[in-house]
Amino acid sequence: MKIEQDLLAKNDAYADDNRIAFNMTGALALNLVSSPGSGKTTLLVETIKRLQSDLPVAVIEGDQQTSMDAEHIRATGAPALQINTGKGCHLDAHMTGHAFEQLRPAFGSVLFIENVGNLVCPAMFDLGEEHRVVLLSVTEGEDKPLKYPDMIRSSHLLLITKVDLLPHLDFDMDALISNARKINPGIKILKVSAKTGEGMDGWTGFIRAARTLALTGCATAEEWG
Amino acid sequence: MKIEQDLLAKNDAYADDNRIAFNMTGALALNLVSSPGSGKTTLLVETIKRLQSDLPVAVIEGDQQTSMDAEHIRATGAPALQINTGKGCHLDAHMTGHAFEQLRPAFGSVLFIENVGNLVCPAMFDLGEEHRVVLLSVTEGEDKPLKYPDMIRSSHLLLITKVDLLPHLDFDMDALISNARKINPGIKILKVSAKTGEGMDGWTGFIRAARTLALTGCATAEEWG
Repeated sequence: MKIEQDLLAKNDAYADDNRIAFNMTGALALNLVSSPGSGKTTLLVETIKRLQSDLPVAVIEGDQQTSMDAEHIRATGAPALQINTGKGCHLDAHMTGHAFEQLRPAFGSVLFIENVGNLVCPAMFDLGEEHRVVLLSVTEGEDKPLKYPDMIRSSHLLLITKVDLLPHLDFDMDALISNARKINPGIKILKVSAKTGEGMDGWTGFIRAARTLALTGCATAEEWG
Repeated sequence: MKIEQDLLAKNDAYADDNRIAFNMTGALALNLVSSPGSGKTTLLVETIKRLQSDLPVAVIEGDQQTSMDAEHIRATGAPALQINTGKGCHLDAHMTGHAFEQLRPAFGSVLFIENVGNLVCPAMFDLGEEHRVVLLSVTEGEDKPLKYPDMIRSSHLLLITKVDLLPHLDFDMDALISNARKINPGIKILKVSAKTGEGMDGWTGFIRAARTLALTGCATAEEWG
């Protein structure tokens, strides 16, 4: 218990350093967390395609092994750096800070940090991000917010992904939303499909408004949608 | 690193105790691991319905929080005990042994241990099981074996779940199987859908044969299918 506390205290100190670095370079850092296979990389690729014509974007990819995700991202033209965590089940603030220094994204970039696919470990590790975004795909069932409450509680935005599959599933959307709000009444919720594009304007709108707010300290109600 | 080694050595000693306990009570222990939402509980419910008319079945459920899964299982009539791991991302052999003592399943039971939904942490923790069964659903993508190699390497059987959704997905089954075999050439692979029943006979056949083998020390080629 003592060891865990020391570890988290160290991480939080690095996270504070990251916040300063993100701030000074105008980076909007979004920490994307989810189960393996809930569609983080596919969503990121589609999101980048929609943003990069007028916004600088950079990506830090976390995976236990392989650099496949970073390669997928780089195929869009956006700079991406892969971190392999080996036996580790989450990114930490120290490795994130190092990756950010190597990436050196353009001023005012949207910095996506794709965490290791895991609904437990990444919840405890602040990376210095502006917003934590948790993805739950509609194929995962309605009960996940109750079973992984730490992750839902620590997130600002819930993206319900793969909504194009809804016609083929027994899935109760109202139950999922109600379960999420039971754990985190203030969580913002958006439904998206990277495949059909449904809801993508809402999601990119959120990113644009959050970036304006981070850069200027204010955002209009219209921007927040 | 030293702490991790001590922890795993302790776990392995408990796992050996569990193996003895399982052996003495004729229990066939199967450790089910996967991402959150890949369909472990739904598969278990359908599996139990197919086995319980002629085989005793018992279930240990692991989740970070809630006892919903144990309740789903108990609705089938099978005894089930829920372990909540709190901040922990996996079951360990010690908690599994305690749960087994409390459950006291009938002699010769099939003991399903549903681990916490996570493709990283549970890979390192032997529970004393006869077989580790990893589930990957077709909605999770073909790359998961390469990204979570420890789990694939340490598993005896890969269940590819939710195959009823294949017509609605861009999913390359051959690529998934080839990726799994790259990591673990000897892994047995079965495709199932708990919803339509496809492949369920192969899966319950595997369980029956494994149980016969565990109880008698031999199983016929026909039983292994």
